[in-house]
Amino acid sequence: MILTVTLNTALDITYRVRSLRPHTSHRVTEVTERPGGKGLNVARVLAALGHEVTATGFVGGATGRALQDQLTAFAGVTDALVPVEGGTRRTIAVADDTSGDTTQLNEPGPLVSSAEWSAFQEAYEDLLRSASAVALCGSLPPGVPVGAYAQLIRTARTADVPVLLDTSGEPLQRGVAARPDIVKPNADELAELTGSHEPLLATRDARRRGAHAVVASLGPEGLLAHTPQGHWRATPPHPVRGNPTGAGDSAVAGLLSGLVEHLPWPDRLARAAALSAATVRAPAAGEFDRAAYEDLLARVTVTDEANAA
Amino acid sequence: MILTVTLNTALDITYRVRSLRPHTSHRVTEVTERPGGKGLNVARVLAALGHEVTATGFVGGATGRALQDQLTAFAGVTDALVPVEGGTRRTIAVADDTSGDTTQLNEPGPLVSSAEWSAFQEAYEDLLRSASAVALCGSLPPGVPVGAYAQLIRTARTADVPVLLDTSGEPLQRGVAARPDIVKPNADELAELTGSHEPLLATRDARRRGAHAVVASLGPEGLLAHTPQGHWRATPPHPVRGNPTGAGDSAVAGLLSGLVEHLPWPDRLARAAALSAATVRAPAAGEFDRAAYEDLLARVTVTDEANAA
Repeated sequence: MILTVTLNTALDITYRVRSLRPHTSHRVTEVTERPGGKGLNVARVLAALGHEVTATGFVGGATGRALQDQLTAFAGVTDALVPVEGGTRRTIAVADDTSGDTTQLNEPGPLVSSAEWSAFQEAYEDLLRSASAVALCGSLPPGVPVGAYAQLIRTARTADVPVLLDTSGEPLQRGVAARPDIVKPNADELAELTGSHEPLLATRDARRRGAHAVVASLGPEGLLAHTPQGHWRATPPHPVRGNPTGAGDSAVAGLLSGLVEHLPWPDRLARAAALSAATVRAPAAGEFDRAAYEDLLARVTVTDEANAA
Repeated sequence: MILTVTLNTALDITYRVRSLRPHTSHRVTEVTERPGGKGLNVARVLAALGHEVTATGFVGGATGRALQDQLTAFAGVTDALVPVEGGTRRTIAVADDTSGDTTQLNEPGPLVSSAEWSAFQEAYEDLLRSASAVALCGSLPPGVPVGAYAQLIRTARTADVPVLLDTSGEPLQRGVAARPDIVKPNADELAELTGSHEPLLATRDARRRGAHAVVASLGPEGLLAHTPQGHWRATPPHPVRGNPTGAGDSAVAGLLSGLVEHLPWPDRLARAAALSAATVRAPAAGEFDRAAYEDLLARVTVTDEANAA
């Protein structure tokens, strides 16, 4: 199975309102809820692609129970979340019918104790024994050490399980130094990691910092990969309009599924770019449009960037 | 015991943010949750006053379980909520540190089926057997007939249990016609019920429509009562500044506790006005400041309005 780690899981709630006006009262006309946090999004896409997936991370409180109820309703995602005393966070996206824009309210995560962090590390080590690959995704909840991902990467490497890292800031900085197999920063994260706003130079620099392969997701410009096997750019056939929420998580799912299927890099990148674009095009945030995916997969352009780099 | 009915219970969530700006992302710095809906607020105040209280109404889903977990943590409130298939609603108050103002997002309630409504009516009839008084509070969730309160009032009257009604719109209109012992409208609800913006005339008119006693809560101007025993106005010693959320519910608790203790009307009104003002003054919405309550109780003025009316 593929293992996904989401230390800061969330219940993602979307409210529709007619028009959000601060300091007034609003009737919410529609409420949707789904398990969130980047690793759970990755797990959902992997399951939809037909992979066996186990999701771990922390979960707690009434919101955590609601999240787990909904997670077990998904075919193919095995729940291996580790309980914590604190409550799983909610995120609320207020979608405004009038403007079409969204206002986001993000709760902080639960405070994780050092005993809970130790319990997680043990569970993680056990789960790695039956994992073909692992993805470490998203932010760290309060209380988890900033070097958490670096530790988890070292454990995966010791267990000989390929590991992908998708996070930001200091956890990314430290994680890259622990030599993950793949990092998947977006343009901002890549610039923050390397100090360079020039993606070709920055992806090369990120490899020098320790990552075996770097795949940068550059929004409408697709993916830019710098790997030991070569450098490529994967671009969708035309700019895709829609909701970019979860597009990066779908790219991670594409990269991981290609890795465990031993696809060559250009095919992994085509799959990741097509899934990402099909997610932008889907009506619900973070879902992907399967017909669009199959259509896009044949039409993504993968170009060799060896000379450019 | 005193019975409170909250058909549209809610989990009231308060978020603190630095400044709410539509179409941007916000870190919530503080999250507080408590069981809500007017009848549950009344129950909490009655329990704090030392009364035995049972809370009924509908509850469902993960939010309902969270509400019940928190309700049973309160000393003195017995949970007799009736399960429904749909989910209990959340309300979110976004408190803005910069402006001090609050933005409210209210989910719709669960859709109640006719079988669930029947199950509630049976449970209610059973509970009335050991009730010394009953309060019917707040809005109706979708699916509950608009004449629901009228039915519940008739059941209470048949069981010889004094009944107080605190609602608005059509459910208030129909409820008043079923001859409740007390109705407690605020200024807007009273005007909507009677068509008159003149409280003295409007309270008299509301009695003519069927209510045995009418107690209007007029915000900083205190309470105006029109009863078979006389007409009074109860006024706090000075205008109270603070958060008016729950002030009307505290007034209901004061009226009910005075009723079951067989206090004369002026004493009931003094208690209700003091509790209401002490709620406005408390730092947390819907809580009351006990020291302020005891201080205010001695200083509320109750004047006979018989001549004025």
